[in-house]
Amino acid sequence: MRVPPFATIAVLLTAALGGPVLAAGRETRIPEPALATAAQLREKALASDLGYRIVESLTTEVGPRLAGSEADARAVAWAVAKFKELGFDKVWTEPVTFPKWERRSESARVVGAHAQPLAVTALGGSPAGTVEAEVVRFPDLAALEAAAPGSLAGKIAFVDYRMERARDGSGYGPGGRVRSRGPSAAIRAGAAAYLMRSAGTDSHRMPHTGITRFDEGLTPIPSAALAAPDADQLARLLARGPVKVRLALDCGWDGSYTSQNVIGEIRGSQAPDEVVLIGGHLDSWDLGTGAIDDGAGVGLTMAAAKLIGEIKPRPARTIRVIAFANEEQGLHGGKAYAARHAADVAKHQIAAESDFGAGRIYAFSTSAPEHAKAAEAQIAQALAPLGIEHRPGKGGPGPDLGPFAQQGLAWAWLAQDGTDYFDLHHTPDDTLDKIDPRALAQNVAAYAVFAYLAASAEGDFGSTARPQPQAQE
Amino acid sequence: MRVPPFATIAVLLTAALGGPVLAAGRETRIPEPALATAAQLREKALASDLGYRIVESLTTEVGPRLAGSEADARAVAWAVAKFKELGFDKVWTEPVTFPKWERRSESARVVGAHAQPLAVTALGGSPAGTVEAEVVRFPDLAALEAAAPGSLAGKIAFVDYRMERARDGSGYGPGGRVRSRGPSAAIRAGAAAYLMRSAGTDSHRMPHTGITRFDEGLTPIPSAALAAPDADQLARLLARGPVKVRLALDCGWDGSYTSQNVIGEIRGSQAPDEVVLIGGHLDSWDLGTGAIDDGAGVGLTMAAAKLIGEIKPRPARTIRVIAFANEEQGLHGGKAYAARHAADVAKHQIAAESDFGAGRIYAFSTSAPEHAKAAEAQIAQALAPLGIEHRPGKGGPGPDLGPFAQQGLAWAWLAQDGTDYFDLHHTPDDTLDKIDPRALAQNVAAYAVFAYLAASAEGDFGSTARPQPQAQE
Repeated sequence: MRVPPFATIAVLLTAALGGPVLAAGRETRIPEPALATAAQLREKALASDLGYRIVESLTTEVGPRLAGSEADARAVAWAVAKFKELGFDKVWTEPVTFPKWERRSESARVVGAHAQPLAVTALGGSPAGTVEAEVVRFPDLAALEAAAPGSLAGKIAFVDYRMERARDGSGYGPGGRVRSRGPSAAIRAGAAAYLMRSAGTDSHRMPHTGITRFDEGLTPIPSAALAAPDADQLARLLARGPVKVRLALDCGWDGSYTSQNVIGEIRGSQAPDEVVLIGGHLDSWDLGTGAIDDGAGVGLTMAAAKLIGEIKPRPARTIRVIAFANEEQGLHGGKAYAARHAADVAKHQIAAESDFGAGRIYAFSTSAPEHAKAAEAQIAQALAPLGIEHRPGKGGPGPDLGPFAQQGLAWAWLAQDGTDYFDLHHTPDDTLDKIDPRALAQNVAAYAVFAYLAASAEGDFGSTARPQPQAQE
Repeated sequence: MRVPPFATIAVLLTAALGGPVLAAGRETRIPEPALATAAQLREKALASDLGYRIVESLTTEVGPRLAGSEADARAVAWAVAKFKELGFDKVWTEPVTFPKWERRSESARVVGAHAQPLAVTALGGSPAGTVEAEVVRFPDLAALEAAAPGSLAGKIAFVDYRMERARDGSGYGPGGRVRSRGPSAAIRAGAAAYLMRSAGTDSHRMPHTGITRFDEGLTPIPSAALAAPDADQLARLLARGPVKVRLALDCGWDGSYTSQNVIGEIRGSQAPDEVVLIGGHLDSWDLGTGAIDDGAGVGLTMAAAKLIGEIKPRPARTIRVIAFANEEQGLHGGKAYAARHAADVAKHQIAAESDFGAGRIYAFSTSAPEHAKAAEAQIAQALAPLGIEHRPGKGGPGPDLGPFAQQGLAWAWLAQDGTDYFDLHHTPDDTLDKIDPRALAQNVAAYAVFAYLAASAEGDFGSTARPQPQAQE
């Protein structure tokens, strides 16, 4: 999961520019019979363990599936086979090409009088390198950014920022920036390597990996995250005097790789070319088996669509499920999908991605314009028995939908409780045992109800292609 | 911490054979003024962070301190310096020689269609070796022990027993036996290597190490523990069909090493040759920094004695604190102490070791014979305000005191709440942040009150040398 900084902008733009597609000029409404069917679907989904079984299958049979690794191809084959096994009407893949990053080995240790190992993991995108140098601690990113150019020459910069726990994951904004911006700030100050307290909320000896990037024109330096107890330890040692650390990373970019977005469809009965899109991302970081990030998102959306497919008659529109390739290293799957389907924005009625773990969904909203607000309220009412609150005007699309949402895609927000998400996110501990099957079934029920009703609506949710700004990068 | 199987025997023997030392024929009693002083000491200890600061110092400055490693010597130097810094009257060391075991590297991975790494750690005492073989799962130790000789030829035996959580740590009896006896059972069935679900109660990607042993006449095989989520994963894969694992351990015995029991004394004012003994063990496993096992025991007993030393007048008897060498690999420090001081059993009035973490103490008892029961009750009453219950007839000595208790040493049991102990025990997660400073202060208060009152008692607690059986091994 990445924080979509464009969420608020997307809300405003979609509301301003969104217009009706199928039913110009009239209010979008969900017919009463569909609401009755949705209530049955909700109860059926709550009683089903299908979502959990799919996550179990992916995380067990494929395990960790770093984008570009040998397991990436196995994950794609798994997803194709799983869609088919579940009886999806159409299953296909679309290529996604990206630079390939590999982790080979990593270690860190305090040297000298207090010699001891530190639990560390390379940040995604880090180059290889071994640096033995004195550590300079900064309490947060701003302090490092304020360091004078050259002031860290030959040193290891260490940002010791503690990320805040929050149900909505809002702590990941500042926490994630320490990972994405810290290395470049360290380079500007002359540092030879970069260490950070993991962007996480746990207190286990498990560092949190995640992608970083280096600003144009800078020479990348070895960059890694310490587990929280190791950051504590390093801070305590630094309080006693100078500390030298030896950081040894063997990792780096190595050519490019072509993976696949894997797509399955439950075909609509009346307007099969109109699509309600749900999904998650198929890749994971390599340290865990990617259960909460994002096996859960893949499993629960596959299960929701499968359960919708069992309903007779089918809803009017098609349910499309996407297992996105390589979300973790830069939304590559989402960008590829948006580029390939740029001409078809308006065919995608509305979309929702699940990529924030497997906690219960507690809030719902959409980007729907005024003429679809009543339909949004109808969906909210159908979700209410699941303990889901309607919070109009809040939220944003999932990370992989961000690029497409910027092109005008309408989105729904099904907010998961992420209180514990950053205890596990991007660590070895992201494994199946951390998923509560009942909470996952509640997610399946919510996605099934949302997708079924959106696919049954008379009228649209405001997806419409809008003029794209020229690329500015 | 090891389970002392001799606990019950010790209770019976001490009760039967124990006799008065200083005050033959009369009841042991604690004078009223000492009880009043103990109440003040209790409050002072509760308000002090000294115990926590000592643990912080050891775990930070020395870090992991595997017996026989470079850090073992640093830990001994730390303990000598810390006793002196705290103003102990006498500080010395006594040599402890043992075989040296080293961990160099370890890894395991599923190979084949479901290729993925497994989080694993070598059991202490395991030989080096790389084995790639099919895994055969057993639900518990009994099932493996029932395997026919030769039936596991060329295979990896995997015991998937789940240890039970309990406040008193009783789940470690059967859990620990999977570690101590499993490898020999696997060898008898012909296995090429041994894997076990960690003897632990957590669900993190952190395997639990710990010593194992191989029965006489068997050729040791590589033996390791899987983290709980990895044992889950392996069991799920095995449910789908045959699974091959590649286990690669580089570790083993390498000569012998001489460490030290480090001993500090707060001298008694009237009977300085009579000793009340408290302590913990100085060594730790190498994966964590040994905060709960057993930095806590060292820190809280040092702090308790230091606080007693500040009282004027000092108690009659001497308080001796021992930081035992190499408990983890076979009670080497405790055995060396018992052998060296065999003639002085009766001088040691009573002893208590803390080696079960840093949870609050909830129960108290001693091995005191009938003539000292009233004094035991007086101590229990002084401990009651700390939330400690008197449970006469229960408990046993700490592991390092076991050998000496078998020679007739009287002991006290200050039972810590170990509900969470086996979440951390022998894992990388045994770090300072897991200690609650307030719970540790409660421990310091309890040890201070107990040791002060035992050192102030008029009469003995039943320590008396008893005839030793001939060695039967």
